[in-house]
This record gives sequence, C-alpha cells and structure tokens, in this order.
Amino acid sequence: MKLTPLPAALLLLASVTHAAIKTQEVEYRHGDGVLQGFFAWDDAVKGKRPGVLVIHEWWGHGPYVRRRAEMLAKLGYVAFAADMYGKGVYAKDHQEAGKLSGMYRSDRKLMRERALAGLNELKKHSSVDGRLASIGYCFGGTTSLELARAGADLRGVASFHGGLGTPMPAKPGEIKARVLVLHGADDKFVNPELPGFQEEMRAARADWQLVSYGGAVHSFTVKEAGDDPSKGMAYDEKADLRSWEALKDFLADSLR
Amino acid sequence: MKLTPLPAALLLLASVTHAAIKTQEVEYRHGDGVLQGFFAWDDAVKGKRPGVLVIHEWWGHGPYVRRRAEMLAKLGYVAFAADMYGKGVYAKDHQEAGKLSGMYRSDRKLMRERALAGLNELKKHSSVDGRLASIGYCFGGTTSLELARAGADLRGVASFHGGLGTPMPAKPGEIKARVLVLHGADDKFVNPELPGFQEEMRAARADWQLVSYGGAVHSFTVKEAGDDPSKGMAYDEKADLRSWEALKDFLADSLR
Repeated sequence: MKLTPLPAALLLLASVTHAAIKTQEVEYRHGDGVLQGFFAWDDAVKGKRPGVLVIHEWWGHGPYVRRRAEMLAKLGYVAFAADMYGKGVYAKDHQEAGKLSGMYRSDRKLMRERALAGLNELKKHSSVDGRLASIGYCFGGTTSLELARAGADLRGVASFHGGLGTPMPAKPGEIKARVLVLHGADDKFVNPELPGFQEEMRAARADWQLVSYGGAVHSFTVKEAGDDPSKGMAYDEKADLRSWEALKDFLADSLR
Repeated sequence: MKLTPLPAALLLLASVTHAAIKTQEVEYRHGDGVLQGFFAWDDAVKGKRPGVLVIHEWWGHGPYVRRRAEMLAKLGYVAFAADMYGKGVYAKDHQEAGKLSGMYRSDRKLMRERALAGLNELKKHSSVDGRLASIGYCFGGTTSLELARAGADLRGVASFHGGLGTPMPAKPGEIKARVLVLHGADDKFVNPELPGFQEEMRAARADWQLVSYGGAVHSFTVKEAGDDPSKGMAYDEKADLRSWEALKDFLADSLR
C-alpha cells in the first residue's frame, strides 16, 4: 500500500467521496431463450472503464450474483451479472439446481455460447472500454473457465470454488485470458479435478495461478451455504475475504 | 484499492513523501556461532511497528536477503535479515550450499533454535512492537515454516519456494502463526512434498493458504537463478511480482 504512486492515491480519495452506484436490469436473448441480466456501475466515475462479467452459481441469477456485481462497481468496474438459465429461472432446491446446471455442464458448446451472449451485452454498455474480465462462482466459475478455453476476448478469468474439469480442454495457445483459480483446499467436489486441470493449463501454456484456502470447502464465499464444513458446502469468512482481496489484485493487474 | 478508507490513504501520502530507509549490521550469537544480521527500517515512520524476520536462501546471508529486508522497510515494517550459517559464511557453489543447508535440514532442532535467536534480535529493536512475522526464501522458507511448527510467537509465516517437508510435523494446535506458501507449480523439488504438507496443516488445524504460480519453477523470485526453467531453477518475473503482492496483503492482514 505505501508504495502506491501519488496519482492513484488521489484518485482513490476522489472516488471514495463521490461513489454513486447505479444498477439496471436488462433483457437479452440467446437462441430461443429470454435472459435477464443486471448491470452495476459507479456513475461518479468519468469516462470508459474495464468491464467484468459475473456468472452465477448453480441456483441461477439471483441476489448473490447481483451483490457481487455491486461490489465490483464499487471497485470502479462496469459489472454485468449474466443469466445462463433464462429470465426468472431460479432453482428451488439442490435437485433442480443440479438439473439446470447439468444441462450446461453436459453441453459445453451451449455453455460457452450462452456465456458469450452475456459478454456481448457487457461490451455494449456505453461506459465499457475494450478491457474485459469474467468471474464466476461454483457453476459460474466453471463457465468462466470455459470462456477462457473458448479463447474469448478476455484479459482475465477468475473462478471461485468452480469445477475445473472439462470435456473440451484448451489446446496450446488457445487461452488468451490470465486465469486465477480460488479453491477451497478441502473441497471434495473439486479436488479430484485439480491434477487434470493443472496438466491442461501446462499443456495450453496458459498464464495461471491457483490459490488453495486451508479448511475451506465448496461454496466458501456463500453465506447461505451455512457453517458446517462436514456437509461439503459451507461459508468460510476468512477464505471469502482473502479470495476477494486476491481477485482485486488480479483484476487490477489484468485490466490495467 | 478504491475502497481503502481515507485515513490509510492519507497515511500513504505522508509516507511516500518522507520515507527514509536506514540499515544496520548487527552481530549476535547462538551457541558457539557468531552471526551477522541486518536491520532495515524507515526512520520517518513514528513510533513502534510490526517486525518481520527474513531468512536467507541456501547460499547464506548475502545481498539478496538484504534487498528483501529493505523492501519490507519501505512497506513500513522493521525488517531483520537473520543469519543462519555464521558471520561471513556464504556458499561459493551449489555443492557448498547443499552442505551448509543440509546441516540444518537434517537437524531441525538446531534449525529452529538458530532461527529463534534471529527472532530474538528482531524483538530487541527499539521500534518493534509485539507483532511479528517471518518470511524466507528456499531454505529460509523451510526455516520459517519450522518456526511456525515450533509455535514461535509469530502472527504470520510465509515461504517463497521453500521445502515443505519436515521430520517434526506440527501437532494439532501447535501452529499459532498464519501460514502462506508461495509455490512454483512446476517446482520439481517441492511438488512431491505438497500432499504431505497439506495433510500436516489439516491435522494441525493451522490457518494456511497455498498459492501455486503456473509455469514457475524453484527459485522463481531470484534473478541470479537465470532464465531457463528446464534447469529446475529459474527467475520468473510475473511470479516474483505476484507473490510479493500476495505477501503484502498477507502481512497487512496478519500484522494489523
């Protein structure tokens, strides 16, 4: 912190004083689907700035992903919480969430194309410059990684407790985005996929980093996941805050 | 960055303007050994502040570790580059470095006690308050982790490309310090130790994090290691800069 050059520090003072977060729901289409996304940006920031796509967990587009978009807006980005399932589609239980997410997990081409439709909405925002990143949570982390594998026009891709395996691994040179994986070291769903993911990233010659948080299990950033790690999914406040700090550094580095 | 509260931002402006890094060599003893350490601190910072121990690579106490101490001083800490081998002892080649470091690797009690002697020197500095951390590089990372296992009075311990195995694993509750491991994902020396280290941290119920940097091999923060990863040791500028950012966040979090 102490070595930050003066201009950045002065900018920081200005933005803290005048932050004015705006939000907007927008409908957009992909194939036969009507989707509803959510923009968040700081209206006090002048001019164009980088855009960050945010992709929801397996439940669907809901309050969680919108809160993350607002947090990104406070950092100075234009954030767009995309919708993968369709307007108003939100799982009522784990079974339905598994079924919805499974439709995309088992069809990676569809997953990539629907996510790209969201990215295109973000690009259209009048305050977005050409610098783009994508982040996601659980299912959304997996989806963001698929965008990276698809060679999407992204400078950075981050996954929070997302699944890391894919039936369509990246070939050498295909991944343009820097990749950051934020992982719970005790995530029993994702741990079996770690070796294969690392091999894929090596073979693809990607720019990648992986952070493992000791004691954290699946869904560690989601308060609604409860506080019992023995169930395999639980909130972990330390890992949540630390992974957000890691994301801030990563976005600042990737999008500057 | 943009959400930093105002007082920190103002402090930042002040410290950038007035930084005045001082350094001092000091002799100290452990057993029969005469050791020579190196303090670095910012004389413009008022009052007491946290102290950070820095432990050298297998070569010994030399210019590299002193430069890191000066970097920590610029962040506002009192840094003390300890000496594990003895005043003026610095390996001339890999063979000698292996022999010197091997004396401590094979005697973890001696390693811990000699490192604690350095920590005690740091504690004596008139500007150090009770908040302490230890970091180290290669051999020094291993040594810092041994300090954590010994239950030393540390809030944080960070290892840069250090060996992670130990014949004296920590028991539950013994590690008081938060642990941060900064690891090259292609470090062939350390990779075999990863599973055992993670099991140790879990069993010890430690607060730990591990960052793997894709493409980085052993010694990734050391420019003198050259630029050929196929040799097993090489400098990696991206991993060097990113791991330093991770350290800054970690120290700010652990020592506040």
